[in-house]
Amino acid sequence: MTQTTTTTHRNNLTDSQQPQPSPSPSSSTGMRLIVPLQGIVQGKGGLILGSVIPCAMYYFLQFYLKRRRSEKKEPEEENEALLLSRSASRSNLLLTRGSFGTRPSVSGRVCGIAKPNDSPYYIGLDRAGEDAYHRDGNKSGVIQLGLAENRLSLDLIENWISENLNDSILGGVDSRGGLSVSGIATYQPFDGMTELKVAMAGFMSQFVGRTVSFDPSQIVLTSGATSAIEILCFALADQGNAFLIPAPYYPGFDRDMKWRTGVELIPVHCRSSDNFSLSISALEQAFNQARKRGQKVRGILLSNPSNPVGNLMTRETLFSLLDFAREKNIHIISDELFAASTFGDDEFVSMAEIIDSEDIDKDRVHIVYGLSKDLSLPGFRVGVIYSYNESVLTVSRKMTRFSPVSAPTQRLVTSMLSDTTFIKNYTERNRERLRGMYELFVEGLKQLGIGCTKSSGGLYCWVDMSGLIRSYNEKGELDLWDKLLNVAKVNMTPGSSCHCIEPGWFRCCFTTLDEEDIPVVIERIRSVVETCKSPS
Amino acid sequence: MTQTTTTTHRNNLTDSQQPQPSPSPSSSTGMRLIVPLQGIVQGKGGLILGSVIPCAMYYFLQFYLKRRRSEKKEPEEENEALLLSRSASRSNLLLTRGSFGTRPSVSGRVCGIAKPNDSPYYIGLDRAGEDAYHRDGNKSGVIQLGLAENRLSLDLIENWISENLNDSILGGVDSRGGLSVSGIATYQPFDGMTELKVAMAGFMSQFVGRTVSFDPSQIVLTSGATSAIEILCFALADQGNAFLIPAPYYPGFDRDMKWRTGVELIPVHCRSSDNFSLSISALEQAFNQARKRGQKVRGILLSNPSNPVGNLMTRETLFSLLDFAREKNIHIISDELFAASTFGDDEFVSMAEIIDSEDIDKDRVHIVYGLSKDLSLPGFRVGVIYSYNESVLTVSRKMTRFSPVSAPTQRLVTSMLSDTTFIKNYTERNRERLRGMYELFVEGLKQLGIGCTKSSGGLYCWVDMSGLIRSYNEKGELDLWDKLLNVAKVNMTPGSSCHCIEPGWFRCCFTTLDEEDIPVVIERIRSVVETCKSPS
Repeated sequence: MTQTTTTTHRNNLTDSQQPQPSPSPSSSTGMRLIVPLQGIVQGKGGLILGSVIPCAMYYFLQFYLKRRRSEKKEPEEENEALLLSRSASRSNLLLTRGSFGTRPSVSGRVCGIAKPNDSPYYIGLDRAGEDAYHRDGNKSGVIQLGLAENRLSLDLIENWISENLNDSILGGVDSRGGLSVSGIATYQPFDGMTELKVAMAGFMSQFVGRTVSFDPSQIVLTSGATSAIEILCFALADQGNAFLIPAPYYPGFDRDMKWRTGVELIPVHCRSSDNFSLSISALEQAFNQARKRGQKVRGILLSNPSNPVGNLMTRETLFSLLDFAREKNIHIISDELFAASTFGDDEFVSMAEIIDSEDIDKDRVHIVYGLSKDLSLPGFRVGVIYSYNESVLTVSRKMTRFSPVSAPTQRLVTSMLSDTTFIKNYTERNRERLRGMYELFVEGLKQLGIGCTKSSGGLYCWVDMSGLIRSYNEKGELDLWDKLLNVAKVNMTPGSSCHCIEPGWFRCCFTTLDEEDIPVVIERIRSVVETCKSPS
Repeated sequence: MTQTTTTTHRNNLTDSQQPQPSPSPSSSTGMRLIVPLQGIVQGKGGLILGSVIPCAMYYFLQFYLKRRRSEKKEPEEENEALLLSRSASRSNLLLTRGSFGTRPSVSGRVCGIAKPNDSPYYIGLDRAGEDAYHRDGNKSGVIQLGLAENRLSLDLIENWISENLNDSILGGVDSRGGLSVSGIATYQPFDGMTELKVAMAGFMSQFVGRTVSFDPSQIVLTSGATSAIEILCFALADQGNAFLIPAPYYPGFDRDMKWRTGVELIPVHCRSSDNFSLSISALEQAFNQARKRGQKVRGILLSNPSNPVGNLMTRETLFSLLDFAREKNIHIISDELFAASTFGDDEFVSMAEIIDSEDIDKDRVHIVYGLSKDLSLPGFRVGVIYSYNESVLTVSRKMTRFSPVSAPTQRLVTSMLSDTTFIKNYTERNRERLRGMYELFVEGLKQLGIGCTKSSGGLYCWVDMSGLIRSYNEKGELDLWDKLLNVAKVNMTPGSSCHCIEPGWFRCCFTTLDEEDIPVVIERIRSVVETCKSPS
């Protein structure tokens, strides 16, 4: 936790030390150097010192910049690592046209986005994508256990679409009696068509809320849950503000929540001794530490069912979380993306149920949902913000202009969700298939002496391989990950990518496999287990 | 130009005067007060004064904040205007649960987004949306000339979709010989499927580049041109940086380019005496003024064909623009959304042609395109970034995870664009229809003694009603707009919404009308013209 925040501060400093061209940006950047100092001094020394230090630093900074300016006529901030090399002939041409020989750079804020992602999570995904295992075609390819995609029930979706495509998209008759193509070709509300909101609310009432119903007017549709989460980050937090997030957590949040919003994530570590459930005291501690550092916490992000662990939050934990959020006056984003993909004995409880029984303080709760996981439709890019806060709904609706769902897809999904017989049948069979694969996979690992936490929802197991790592630290874990990927050709997500504090845990998504693939995976893992057990 | 920028500075000042809770944000916000002063003083007084003033202001600000802090125990930054009123019973419940009675606010940065938009552009759009004129159904409704939507050729699109929907989406056969639904249901590349990029490059080569071809590998697909432009703003400019933009310009840019990116727009005013074409000296002047203010200009945004004027940029202007951008080392975003919707005698020249003939400095040019206008498919949300800069392409591709096009739509559009016979026929007939409607509308206005600039592309006329306004200023223009909207029930976009510096100009989109509607519109405008001409 502390590590993450420290790193970010360090980056800010490095950025601000670069000389800047025009006076005001340079000044304001310069101030970024001074302001933290001001904060430190303020606590101890009072007002005089707090003003003298910035003054002196300002003087020297201005002096330095003046000198720089006279040395360099067009000092554009160049992100040199990102520039392409230039051929000699091009340089000549440029010179004849009076160029200064400078190249246009990208903005400072996207430098982090531009960097190749060296997290094992992404490396593994790419490797398995490039050389994917196929039972028939590519037996020696990499088996993908890193991608949270559910292919177990695609046949059901395929049948439905084949039978209903034309009627779904063209079936409606418009006011002039023609085909209703104009209803998909022309501008539609960016935050989603009313018909789809109604169908979505019905679907969510059945599979997310269960005992409570969702109101279509509180739904904002987005191009996938990724956009939904980013929009909520923009809506709830300013740059530099933070969200508390129980860890281990989904590796993609570091990208989706932080990249463009400048928001920070503070992991709240959960431990194997508690079956990776969240403790309110850990949350309290993380909150207080953040406050001490001067960091403003704006909310908590939950994922329930948890990605990557697959466990569910109890009713009691959810009530405590709401109390905590109320006491600190912060928001709760509850990511319930796998609500209908539960398969264990534990009961899934949506934050909507908690809020409904409380009937107070609803406006700090925002639920994220989508059809990527529960309906196996990630390609459709349909996400949902469900909020009880009018202001958040207002700004979210406006921001959907950057992330709308395209109209033909909305039509198709409206039809599908409205076909309640299909949806009920699909969800039941999908749960059976998930349970079947989960049990097969866990049993296979058990044969190898490898345990898992008890998962009740989602598309994965959370696997304890700590007994197989040579050194009990991140390096040990990554050595094992590397061996699994490159020797056994199995891509798993190491716990460190999910900010798990204990080394040796791995997330394994079993839903891109067929039952027949399970023995192959287990055999490949066995080969690694054996080398780990043999003396090196 | 100056006006806009001044307003923005004023807003910043107001924000920063609000007390902030945690030490570090309060300090940095405080500095925003000081930094502009520093910039002003620097020019005249040198280093001593430039340091003494911030020092003194800092002293007083700290003193003020200390006092505020001791007065208020939990100083959450509340956006009071956005809070809902609370009922007494709820308050009681809250108190029994130990709440502080505070409410969770939205972030500071979305306060501007939350405000109801009081620009006549949006008010008019809403009015015409709520009470839309129909020849058969609602004869007394508002005629919409404010929405840039092309309905002239929807019948052609409708026929094509009806005939080709099933084959487009389900026609492909996957590697296992089944229907290729898995190719739309499962995860697809966020920046677009290769097949669609190839089809899009072919289409753009024919209708945008004409003499040059587009390379699919330089295409990034987004959920509409709105997302494309926002992604480019993130990629090219940091918060507070600016783009120069020839004015009058599309009112939506103030929202799409600024809302979440914090980028500023500096209008470069074009005048009726030049037929609203861009002068490089005005550009130079705006650039220098920005620099004097300490504002960093990162690029120019062109719209060509121009929205709202409908004129085209000449080859010479485009060359000069490129020279200007090179000299200043800034970017060019060329919005060519109406490239295939040209209908006049003037030749459309894409920035791609200019760049192609130069063969240097390509990496400062980024073209924005999409299918909303040229293919009458705004509901599909298909936008394009076409860039020559590898770094910009890299970050843009990564940012499309927030703005992807859904897979069924991609399939449908791939088929449509690949049907080159249909596309050629559609484009030709669409141009004829545009020309026909343009001439009818202009002729009608001429009968009323109202002139227009010569439009050669786009979906609108740029209409000179300056002779009809009672006072030659913005108020006069808005009085006329109000009369047109509320008395004559015709929604036009006033020039002031487009940042036009001369009062009395209006943008009129004629493409949501049928030919039969033209006499009705003209008659309604005539009624207003008559009241304007009569002595008040």
